[in-house]
Amino acid sequence: MTHAPLPEELAGQLAGHFGRRFSRGESSRLQHGRDESVHPPQLPDGVVHAENNDEVALVVRLCAAHGVPVIPYGVGSSVEGHVLAPCGGISLDLSGMNRVLAIHAEDGDATVEAGVTRKQLNDALKGSGLFFPIDPGADATLGGMAATRASGTNAVRYGTMKDNVLATTTVLADGRIMKTGGRARKSSAGYDLTRLLVGSEGTLGIMTELTVKLYPIPEAISAAVCTFPDIDSAVQTVIQTIQLGVPVARIELLDALSLKAINTFSKTTLAEAPTLFFEFHGSPAGAEEQAQTVQAIADEMGGTHFQWATRPEDRSRLWQARHDAYFACLQLKPGCRCFPTDVCVPISRLAECIAATNADIAQVSIPIALFGHVGDGNFHLVVLVDPANDQEMAEAAWISQRVVERAIAMEGTCTGEHGIGLGKRKYLVAEHGEVAVDVMRALKAALDPANLLNPGKILPPARVAAD
Amino acid sequence: MTHAPLPEELAGQLAGHFGRRFSRGESSRLQHGRDESVHPPQLPDGVVHAENNDEVALVVRLCAAHGVPVIPYGVGSSVEGHVLAPCGGISLDLSGMNRVLAIHAEDGDATVEAGVTRKQLNDALKGSGLFFPIDPGADATLGGMAATRASGTNAVRYGTMKDNVLATTTVLADGRIMKTGGRARKSSAGYDLTRLLVGSEGTLGIMTELTVKLYPIPEAISAAVCTFPDIDSAVQTVIQTIQLGVPVARIELLDALSLKAINTFSKTTLAEAPTLFFEFHGSPAGAEEQAQTVQAIADEMGGTHFQWATRPEDRSRLWQARHDAYFACLQLKPGCRCFPTDVCVPISRLAECIAATNADIAQVSIPIALFGHVGDGNFHLVVLVDPANDQEMAEAAWISQRVVERAIAMEGTCTGEHGIGLGKRKYLVAEHGEVAVDVMRALKAALDPANLLNPGKILPPARVAAD
Repeated sequence: MTHAPLPEELAGQLAGHFGRRFSRGESSRLQHGRDESVHPPQLPDGVVHAENNDEVALVVRLCAAHGVPVIPYGVGSSVEGHVLAPCGGISLDLSGMNRVLAIHAEDGDATVEAGVTRKQLNDALKGSGLFFPIDPGADATLGGMAATRASGTNAVRYGTMKDNVLATTTVLADGRIMKTGGRARKSSAGYDLTRLLVGSEGTLGIMTELTVKLYPIPEAISAAVCTFPDIDSAVQTVIQTIQLGVPVARIELLDALSLKAINTFSKTTLAEAPTLFFEFHGSPAGAEEQAQTVQAIADEMGGTHFQWATRPEDRSRLWQARHDAYFACLQLKPGCRCFPTDVCVPISRLAECIAATNADIAQVSIPIALFGHVGDGNFHLVVLVDPANDQEMAEAAWISQRVVERAIAMEGTCTGEHGIGLGKRKYLVAEHGEVAVDVMRALKAALDPANLLNPGKILPPARVAAD
Repeated sequence: MTHAPLPEELAGQLAGHFGRRFSRGESSRLQHGRDESVHPPQLPDGVVHAENNDEVALVVRLCAAHGVPVIPYGVGSSVEGHVLAPCGGISLDLSGMNRVLAIHAEDGDATVEAGVTRKQLNDALKGSGLFFPIDPGADATLGGMAATRASGTNAVRYGTMKDNVLATTTVLADGRIMKTGGRARKSSAGYDLTRLLVGSEGTLGIMTELTVKLYPIPEAISAAVCTFPDIDSAVQTVIQTIQLGVPVARIELLDALSLKAINTFSKTTLAEAPTLFFEFHGSPAGAEEQAQTVQAIADEMGGTHFQWATRPEDRSRLWQARHDAYFACLQLKPGCRCFPTDVCVPISRLAECIAATNADIAQVSIPIALFGHVGDGNFHLVVLVDPANDQEMAEAAWISQRVVERAIAMEGTCTGEHGIGLGKRKYLVAEHGEVAVDVMRALKAALDPANLLNPGKILPPARVAAD
């Protein structure tokens, strides 16, 4: 897509206000114009590092006056092209807004700037007895996680960002600064602007501060790993666990190829077969009871090698291996990139969805690992491609389209936690229907009439009227 | 407010389509033009009983063509004037849309028409091993509960309607039928229209079908009741319970006057002192462990008469008494109405908020009972007034304003679960700020440009521009 160059008057204003925190250099623009996925980079015209609400508002106002797009940027760990600049404009880097503003231990909430990462928040919580549970693989910023409605391994117990953002400070398209939500645990006071912003990927406003829920660190945490003869028996174990209402904190599936990658990458000796990783949170008796219930289910389903890990160092090694799965898989094919998929289906359809997907995988030449947060019905394919290889990209696109269409046909979603960005726009109408997408467009037009906040993301181009 | 009479052409169209299900009779209009609160009735010009999505869409389209408002109606159990007709128009009664459309036991969700009540849904779930936990006092419709973002006694464990509505079918202001959300447990696919609609009180669209989450009936349920020397020690028990992360299912505070009312109404012999009601859900061992932990906290805080109830009939009697508290309080002053309050504050401020409120209560002549869902920081005053008595109404208004302003000053909300309706509009700006309320107005204008969906609710009249 071609677009007008950055107006020199705007460049001068930004340079005047931000000095060295405004850059038009190639390396900075390249860093801010690409993400972790296969999307080819699309560079912004400049990068501003903002350090407070007023600076964010200033950038938005200056850019609005010149009709120039603004693209919020955290650490660039998203995977659907969210931070790319298909219409040019200014990448607004919020990683310098990284102050933990308040920790209310008694109320179980914290207020942070949007550039605080999840690990930074958990470091700040040390000694408080509390933790923040949402953990996408990367050490993403909380602003970015809110923008994509992220989740991760703990969501089956603690929910997603939608459930854990209580309040925001948000800069609107006209530069006004808005507060949404509040610190009460529930409210029926007016439209839920907080949850409209969570998942809006920077297209309705730029979240600059968040108040998030915290949770007491469980008295006892134990972990377990169990190998299964096939994917289906593992998935049936998950389904029964969820249906029994066992309050498991994490329940993750990895396929044989993922385990092979992990063993190589993490020097582990796990069985290279379909495997479930579990974590149990509770009182010592409660966590043990959960584990026993799940072990009984796994036994019935043919699970073997049910191994416990209650010592913190064993748990950490186990879960580090799980968290490294993505990077481990990337090493299966040196120099490759990942073509991400992220479907989520009602759990009753999960086994069927994975089986059909594995049948597709058997038909292509590229390596594809499968793992995911199956307690939610969410799984990823790590489709390993050389982006320069058209044949591989075509196979990846075919697999991706097949799994998305299958998930939608099963009343699921094209994205459980990554977001739409550029990559999944083409499925938005298939998933939600034309009317809902029209309403999304109306909301976008109401809040960003000039289409300058992260333009081109989420919403597919409008329909051409039928003749 | 005066408004134009119902156009005869529209009346003829409605009569033609709906026959006896369209009424302009006084009794039907009166029934649909008042609610459970002190708001003086404001009658619609007519009532239509719709039985399916297409009929709802038809009413909306016909009314839109004549510029006539449409006010959705369930069973009229709301308390902030939500169903009143300050601008006239058609009350659209959805109580006939009462089919349970699907129960997906494996996935833990059900799809219902908006007129299904919470008790009806739980009756339909009998034998499935599942239940729907959200329980405002009244046997409200699920559509009405979604519209007001309702909760109740179980919210501390199971969340509110915001957390439990997965998907909707919604009729828009132009009569189009929209699907929002889906049956996947999580999704990052586009703007969260479902949560924008939940709590929008019929002003953005009319929800006609809902998919809601269900939960496994716990293996063990036990209840307990405990008396305290004063409100503060009861509240401190709540705070410690929550901060320890005890997954208590219900934790309810009632003051001495509420207990007196309950004893009279329910023929119980509970101590007439500040009291906590608890319910514990889990495995037998887990529920017992929770109860023991809470009993230890209560003991430390000076709680006495910690009584258990594990037999279903004892639990039922106890909780029936709690559920009857509102009606029991109404009997304290025959012929009175309730002026409702519904604040919710961060739990660290709860004891202080209640203490200051009790100091206010000591200054007025009218009887005021206090109880609430204190695990969430939410409590109600049952302010008993004769609506025809100006002095009593003035005292009630003073108490209400004081408690709301106090809650907002404590970073809380003017309404935890009742909604804004007509009664709390004046506090919306104080709670959210002018910018957020302007954004709410922009959303309303985008989705209902002619202001015909439940006009006059939620949004305060727009500011007059300063000179």
